[in-house]
Amino acid sequence: MFFILQMAISNIRYGEGVTKEIGMDLQNLGAKRVCLMTDRNLSQLPPVDAVLNSLTKSGINFQMYDNVWVEPTDQSFLDAIEFAKKGEFDAYVAVGGGSVIDTCKAANLYASSPSSDFLDYVNAPIGKGKAVTVPLKPLIAVPTTAGTGSETTGVAIFDFKELKVKTGIASRAIKPTLGIIDPLHTLSMPERIVANSGFDVLCHALESYTALPYKMRSPCPSNPINRPAYQGSNPISDVWALHALRIVAKYLKRAIRNPEDREARANMHLASAFAGIGFGNAGVHLCHGMSYPISGLVKTYKPKDYNVDHSLVPHGLSVVLTSPAVFAFTAQVHPERHLEAAEILGADIRTARIKDAGLILADTLRKFLFDLNVDDGLAAIGYSKADIPALVKGTLPQERVTKLSPRPQTEEDLSALFEASMKLY
Amino acid sequence: MFFILQMAISNIRYGEGVTKEIGMDLQNLGAKRVCLMTDRNLSQLPPVDAVLNSLTKSGINFQMYDNVWVEPTDQSFLDAIEFAKKGEFDAYVAVGGGSVIDTCKAANLYASSPSSDFLDYVNAPIGKGKAVTVPLKPLIAVPTTAGTGSETTGVAIFDFKELKVKTGIASRAIKPTLGIIDPLHTLSMPERIVANSGFDVLCHALESYTALPYKMRSPCPSNPINRPAYQGSNPISDVWALHALRIVAKYLKRAIRNPEDREARANMHLASAFAGIGFGNAGVHLCHGMSYPISGLVKTYKPKDYNVDHSLVPHGLSVVLTSPAVFAFTAQVHPERHLEAAEILGADIRTARIKDAGLILADTLRKFLFDLNVDDGLAAIGYSKADIPALVKGTLPQERVTKLSPRPQTEEDLSALFEASMKLY
Repeated sequence: MFFILQMAISNIRYGEGVTKEIGMDLQNLGAKRVCLMTDRNLSQLPPVDAVLNSLTKSGINFQMYDNVWVEPTDQSFLDAIEFAKKGEFDAYVAVGGGSVIDTCKAANLYASSPSSDFLDYVNAPIGKGKAVTVPLKPLIAVPTTAGTGSETTGVAIFDFKELKVKTGIASRAIKPTLGIIDPLHTLSMPERIVANSGFDVLCHALESYTALPYKMRSPCPSNPINRPAYQGSNPISDVWALHALRIVAKYLKRAIRNPEDREARANMHLASAFAGIGFGNAGVHLCHGMSYPISGLVKTYKPKDYNVDHSLVPHGLSVVLTSPAVFAFTAQVHPERHLEAAEILGADIRTARIKDAGLILADTLRKFLFDLNVDDGLAAIGYSKADIPALVKGTLPQERVTKLSPRPQTEEDLSALFEASMKLY
Repeated sequence: MFFILQMAISNIRYGEGVTKEIGMDLQNLGAKRVCLMTDRNLSQLPPVDAVLNSLTKSGINFQMYDNVWVEPTDQSFLDAIEFAKKGEFDAYVAVGGGSVIDTCKAANLYASSPSSDFLDYVNAPIGKGKAVTVPLKPLIAVPTTAGTGSETTGVAIFDFKELKVKTGIASRAIKPTLGIIDPLHTLSMPERIVANSGFDVLCHALESYTALPYKMRSPCPSNPINRPAYQGSNPISDVWALHALRIVAKYLKRAIRNPEDREARANMHLASAFAGIGFGNAGVHLCHGMSYPISGLVKTYKPKDYNVDHSLVPHGLSVVLTSPAVFAFTAQVHPERHLEAAEILGADIRTARIKDAGLILADTLRKFLFDLNVDDGLAAIGYSKADIPALVKGTLPQERVTKLSPRPQTEEDLSALFEASMKLY
């Protein structure tokens, strides 16, 4: 018996203004036909401007696709894939949050594998979860939020409309070639987008640090190419997760409160990439697994600061609302890690009992969310007790992540977790 | 003015026995003609056996080159390059310590760029330091020591015989595609090889953590492809450097004392890769810069446990012998970082004065080395005061690293540092 840990870590470049180098990067890659992906809002904003200026200055031939859907769906993925197939591009640039970067990963993948059926690469059991063996084109990701860390991961998430669940594609092959982390882009983020994307960083760090250890994960495919990106918690991802958590504890509140706080916003932008490298190799578990139906089954909730005309639960919000209940549930497995996380987030654990670790972390998270004016649980975003069976049903296909929970869970457990998350304060 | 941090981080796989997957990796890469590089000693030992078994089992067509020179020279590099050019390989495997992995990087580079002159890619001012724009073949590195971290870096060091100095090639392009970190390979390392390679890890961590901050480094080339791999200390490399230093503090002595201590040897094997990721993106400074003439001018020293017929100063030893003097010299710039390092290495700093940081770190290092039976300074490996001018002269061309010292140094400073390193205890 032997245990394996395989790390895939993106190259990243960090610095105020580094976006202006992207034209040279594409020249250096020898790119002749570039696909630039973004969304309608961003296409009018400084991050896309900066990219366009650089492409023009370097004489890069490109086509722009700005039809990316915020919280993308299978339909919106297919639309972007169609564009990519027609364009016969030799490089991709994604400027945006996780929605844009994930859509661009999918477009690159299917345009590089034109005879594949869409379900071929979608995670099992919803899709076939095939290994990617085709070579992809280079993709440069320019994140404009400080949340998903998508610029460092091999994951692309979308909403499967027919089944009303979120699922995704997960393969090291779709990881961007380079992530350009330019904190200037985060200065234009409105307050709630900073908060919600920051909660995603928080949960990436907490979930990957408490995930099932990599030596306990199964199955362990014999061919490395079939090994999942999500390896379970491990000595390398732990370093990234703890480091990201410390930055969140220090800077998230400051970044939300003051758009001019460059130090805080720059640090959160880096923390997003760090947490991405952590969870991108370790995985996430119940907060993320349960978040997909919370987003997928959205009724009429329209979040403040999101300039979209459809209902949506922002990903970071859907993830963080269950976090107090989830960590109270999982702490019995690695209580010392839960207590350590609570301490990093500000809890005084000098007299804490180890068996109370879950409650202490849950309480610390509730205080943290209360201070940040987060909606008071699932009830506040439109769910009631009657929705719990559907939420549980939507969580079951998320086995890829829920099985990384350190504590196995029954349907009853999931029901109880959703119920405990209806109201937080 | 803007500052840039560019990280290039290798993929790594970690676990006891993971070497047996290398045949599948090469199949997955579609490799048809593989070059396996190692040295004469290793070609008879279990790590190479494990690779050969896996290649045979996967039906991989390969040729073996076992002529790698320990502490390689321009001549030994050229011999390996000649072999690589003739073989027209489509993938490389390097099994060994830094000497083997570095030689294989050079072979891959020049075989991929057959019309280049050897000096084209060698670091300036000795060579031309040209940017690498040709595509290289995949290289899988299987480290058998816990020291260089070469499996994670874009650096290849050799001894330039004519000038009697060590220099190298430094480019992200020569970074291995995958590092296979199999702690089983470290179990056969003799005591002094564990010690000396561990000192390399120690100095990688200490030097990269105290290197000139990336925002103070110059020049800052406008095209990213011309940017050096060594960026100066930065918020990402700091995480790796400190983490590696903590592992060295906890495990190096155990790993040296007891070959059966799998936990210690496995942790040092990982620490070597972690420190590699740190210094490979931040750089090293005076210990490394001064080590190259210490190795290059070797007289008759033959280290215990090294099965070679020529004189040599092992790289890790040549690096660590000046470390007390170097950090006493550099501490005035970042005393708090020097004090933090001393604390991690076991110093009690509760009543320490910040202005004594350099002396405290130097004293901590001397104790650490004394406990590990390290030769008592440069005098013990054959140098005397009369050699100092030559040692200084050999350090001057190492500007690529010495300029990353947080404190600038004159020739007189270098003389004083060599003199202070003649005797340690």
